[in-house]
Amino acid sequence: MKPLPAGRIATRQAYAGRFLKLDVDTVRAPDGTEIQLEMIRHPGASAVVPMLSGLDDPDPKILMLRQYRYAADGTMWEIPAGVLQPGEDPLACAHRELEEETGAKAEKVEHLTTIYTTPGFTDERIHLYWATGITVGKPRHEADEFIEVRVESLSRVLNLIGSGEITDSKTIVALLFLAGFKMGQ
Amino acid sequence: MKPLPAGRIATRQAYAGRFLKLDVDTVRAPDGTEIQLEMIRHPGASAVVPMLSGLDDPDPKILMLRQYRYAADGTMWEIPAGVLQPGEDPLACAHRELEEETGAKAEKVEHLTTIYTTPGFTDERIHLYWATGITVGKPRHEADEFIEVRVESLSRVLNLIGSGEITDSKTIVALLFLAGFKMGQ
Repeated sequence: MKPLPAGRIATRQAYAGRFLKLDVDTVRAPDGTEIQLEMIRHPGASAVVPMLSGLDDPDPKILMLRQYRYAADGTMWEIPAGVLQPGEDPLACAHRELEEETGAKAEKVEHLTTIYTTPGFTDERIHLYWATGITVGKPRHEADEFIEVRVESLSRVLNLIGSGEITDSKTIVALLFLAGFKMGQ
Repeated sequence: MKPLPAGRIATRQAYAGRFLKLDVDTVRAPDGTEIQLEMIRHPGASAVVPMLSGLDDPDPKILMLRQYRYAADGTMWEIPAGVLQPGEDPLACAHRELEEETGAKAEKVEHLTTIYTTPGFTDERIHLYWATGITVGKPRHEADEFIEVRVESLSRVLNLIGSGEITDSKTIVALLFLAGFKMGQ
């Protein structure tokens, strides 16, 4: 269970569907006033950059996904990711989603950073990881996932970020964080 | 108006509140099956990195915000940002939010990239910009915003990303994109 935010006075569940839960909370703001806030409650997620070659490769190969996203009305470049199951550790989730979405198993999965996707209206956090020591296998996609796995070089992926073709925020943060703080690029 | 996604068969508004709108859509998936998707409809937003010194400064100063976020149960490091008003151009929104949140006016505002914050459940896009030629002024915060403006060097801000203290995804993308693709850092 997440701890309750310190400012919470009251909460009312305004919607609970198949996946999303939306609360309207009464909150004590920092200036002491009471405000109403709408908040999508999210269990959190993990995402992982699967790197096929080692750190000695100056331009390593990465497993990337081409994934259909209704919200974007088309196909997006993403890294493997998925929602935490109840009680699941974020690192275990990263291993599980990596294997489900790409078929790959990783010897080593290292934490990069953790992001709030859009803190104005959701408590969703995504834990970002970097996987090495990859053994490739066969993916097991869920029925409502439409995913193609591709092998791309890090330099090409960085070019796709620079040109604006990669637009998914978790994917951009994970790749730029890896390139900037772990690879020295 | 945004165009309708190609796969949409039907839509039902499940919640419409002060700020958030949630639809449950029936969608024709890429494999021809019908699926139900919950989707937060969002008007989009702009965010901007305000740089106080010029490109000749190897470690320029940046205006950063310390902003109270109920979703994070505390204060977050962010760049100035806000939601598009009806019909508003994203570049005009970047200028407006920069001035409202920091008091600054910018001679030049350049597009960096545009992100989907979390495309699994919202169509929210944030247009990211980089502002230079800054004239500092007095901010006009909205009543429900709790914001402190700080001047920080780019090197310190990058360190705060690397150490995991900056966790807001739009802020990380904008700063790493700027450092990696525009500043040659």
